[in-house]
Amino acid sequence: MTRQTTMLNAYTPGAGHLSPEDEALARRRATALGPAYRLFYETPVHLIRGEGVNLYAQDGTRYLDCYNNVASVGHCHPRVVEALSRQASTLATHTRYLHDGILAYAEHLLALFPPGLSHVMFTCTGSEANDLALRIARAATGGTGVIVTDNAYHGVTLATAEMSMSIGPAVAPGPTVFPIPAPSAENYPNGIATGFAAAVTDACDRMAAQGIKPALLIVDTIFSSDGVYPDPTGFLAPAAAAIRAKGGLFLADEVQPGFGRTGSHFWGFQRHGLIPDMVSMGKPMGNGYPMAGLVLKPETIAEFGSKTRYFNTFGGNAVAAAVGLAVLDVIRDDALQQNAASVGAAFTQGLKSLAEHHDSLGETRAAGLFIGQTILTDGQPDPARTARLVNQLRDNHVLISSTGPKGDSLKIRPPLPFSHANVDQVLTTLDKILKAL
Amino acid sequence: MTRQTTMLNAYTPGAGHLSPEDEALARRRATALGPAYRLFYETPVHLIRGEGVNLYAQDGTRYLDCYNNVASVGHCHPRVVEALSRQASTLATHTRYLHDGILAYAEHLLALFPPGLSHVMFTCTGSEANDLALRIARAATGGTGVIVTDNAYHGVTLATAEMSMSIGPAVAPGPTVFPIPAPSAENYPNGIATGFAAAVTDACDRMAAQGIKPALLIVDTIFSSDGVYPDPTGFLAPAAAAIRAKGGLFLADEVQPGFGRTGSHFWGFQRHGLIPDMVSMGKPMGNGYPMAGLVLKPETIAEFGSKTRYFNTFGGNAVAAAVGLAVLDVIRDDALQQNAASVGAAFTQGLKSLAEHHDSLGETRAAGLFIGQTILTDGQPDPARTARLVNQLRDNHVLISSTGPKGDSLKIRPPLPFSHANVDQVLTTLDKILKAL
Repeated sequence: MTRQTTMLNAYTPGAGHLSPEDEALARRRATALGPAYRLFYETPVHLIRGEGVNLYAQDGTRYLDCYNNVASVGHCHPRVVEALSRQASTLATHTRYLHDGILAYAEHLLALFPPGLSHVMFTCTGSEANDLALRIARAATGGTGVIVTDNAYHGVTLATAEMSMSIGPAVAPGPTVFPIPAPSAENYPNGIATGFAAAVTDACDRMAAQGIKPALLIVDTIFSSDGVYPDPTGFLAPAAAAIRAKGGLFLADEVQPGFGRTGSHFWGFQRHGLIPDMVSMGKPMGNGYPMAGLVLKPETIAEFGSKTRYFNTFGGNAVAAAVGLAVLDVIRDDALQQNAASVGAAFTQGLKSLAEHHDSLGETRAAGLFIGQTILTDGQPDPARTARLVNQLRDNHVLISSTGPKGDSLKIRPPLPFSHANVDQVLTTLDKILKAL
Repeated sequence: MTRQTTMLNAYTPGAGHLSPEDEALARRRATALGPAYRLFYETPVHLIRGEGVNLYAQDGTRYLDCYNNVASVGHCHPRVVEALSRQASTLATHTRYLHDGILAYAEHLLALFPPGLSHVMFTCTGSEANDLALRIARAATGGTGVIVTDNAYHGVTLATAEMSMSIGPAVAPGPTVFPIPAPSAENYPNGIATGFAAAVTDACDRMAAQGIKPALLIVDTIFSSDGVYPDPTGFLAPAAAAIRAKGGLFLADEVQPGFGRTGSHFWGFQRHGLIPDMVSMGKPMGNGYPMAGLVLKPETIAEFGSKTRYFNTFGGNAVAAAVGLAVLDVIRDDALQQNAASVGAAFTQGLKSLAEHHDSLGETRAAGLFIGQTILTDGQPDPARTARLVNQLRDNHVLISSTGPKGDSLKIRPPLPFSHANVDQVLTTLDKILKAL
């Protein structure tokens, strides 16, 4: 398999059909932000406003957001904005003073976990949460070896980028990082659960041959960047057992699947009937406010905590706590997990029905409102057609992206208040585009 | 010198004089947040509100804030809160869509730098900015060696914690990290400028002996955690030249001195008449909103940018841009840099005058509103007396902390709208406490 050398769904400067105003903006970006930044789409979108599941462009166009999992309870949700504004105008200090807010939030958050996962540490980004988890795992196990999937994404710090092969070939796996194939039926034809666990054991054996002790198996519990692999439920449990048998810890990266998105459960790991040693979370946690965290077992943090203090200037500040609490309240009061389950099921069923009429729609892999949809040409996965489809959808005012190591699947991951009418709009648009192929 | 094994100015559970309510809060913290978190002061402060340079406690007490450099333009500054609320209720998306806000902010920020430092990349924390700088320096130089000062603090990611000896002995310098003594007259009796540069060259030579190529010299340009070493101005220029002569880059960590705090200049490196290859910034950048960044030369990012993309989910989002711009506007419109210069000078002069009457006040090291004040007993630096003084000041409603590898200096770093009357209050309180010794 050839690894992508450039980002999926990235704008190529000079190649799109930008308005003179947007062209000027793109040039200013290159001048001010430098060469490492990317825009989405052949023709980037110039946004000025967001509300619920909609994003509005400078030219007045309304786009249906099928991609952004950060504004997970809906863009600019009034209750979240109100909590943010209120706390920011009252107090915005850090965790070295006593404050009620952080405890109210921490306790609410921890109540969403099975017993045993009873501590939470706050960071600002998912990268920081996974990076901290690695430090803690090293202290707890005395090892350094890390197992990730082939096209994983776990962050942009030096340590987590080296655990994130999806960034592209310029970032090599770290010397103690051992990638294993993603849990697809193609990669494990004799059974995903046993095959994936065996791959973990095999990676530990390869570590041992190099004198490396295992510290951590880290997986995004829905394998977002690997192509979305939610099923069969339960397949992760043997893998978690396998890493523990070798003395390592199991970290569930819930940055993408967490906070109700998978519908049936609040956290992705719960679909697999296991209890992780650590759980990292981020993107939707503050509905856009920069906050993330790591939930863990007391025994996991004991060694690290006995020797090292942890302070993150902004992590767990009073505003983050107020925002995080509002997000949890909205998920509950707006019944967003339930909505993800019912609307996600309808979306998945709709895609499967559409596939009966369109040969280019291959496998649909989904849990709640997290859907991977393979795009085919002549029965074979087709990254080029996937990319075209992503851009055609954008031109028809539906924002989406692609996923997988080859980019052969649509990545569908809308804000959770997505409605059945929104699903109909996507399916109708997709049907129209596919008919015109 | 014995390195501290616990954090300066940390609460020891069970040792203070907490109200039953605060005692319960401290217990809930330990239960929910685990063993790695710390509170300030022998008797922690329970805060509920902030305004300007004041913090208000649960029991109604007003504390004068002489410590918090995050809420740098004043706690809950109405213009910053207004910009935050307005943008959060309008749009809060990321850098992969075109948006005017990030460019307006990036261009305003870059206008505060000398020509050549013309790109900015956005992160959420100073840790992330320094971590990214290390990745970029590795790509640009082909080296991995990093030089830091003995008691530096540059972050909490795995890579930056290994560059931050101030965290304590549990975190060892990374295998490619070479600490050198802080730029004090004590460490370099024959001249700080030549001595510090020679230490850089020597560290590079020690790297070479181990087959390590230099990548980076990183210093907080006011050496906050080393004890505050601002003088003589210009002493950093030979050190920057020394690392460049060995093929490495010079990174000015402006997370603490930046944004006008040093009074005479907007950035700490400007006091030294040099142009860094990279400049990291954070804490005061969003006045509490989690945002940070890295400013660099196009030639520094060229190699990294040609091969690697960079995306930080929350970094440079539309709300961060609006908040950052408001902070820059307030610094200008409220003349806060000028205030830091004049009030800082008065504060420093006041401490020096007070020292004429109190033998326990040693050297005052200061630039603007960043002041290190050594505390002595019988002419010798006294960490225990410093700690007592910090707690006595807290009991007299002045919030402050300590710094330096031994913790023998007061760290005075108030919000920038600090007034002459505020200075008088601190000096009067300090005088009263010292008289009672």
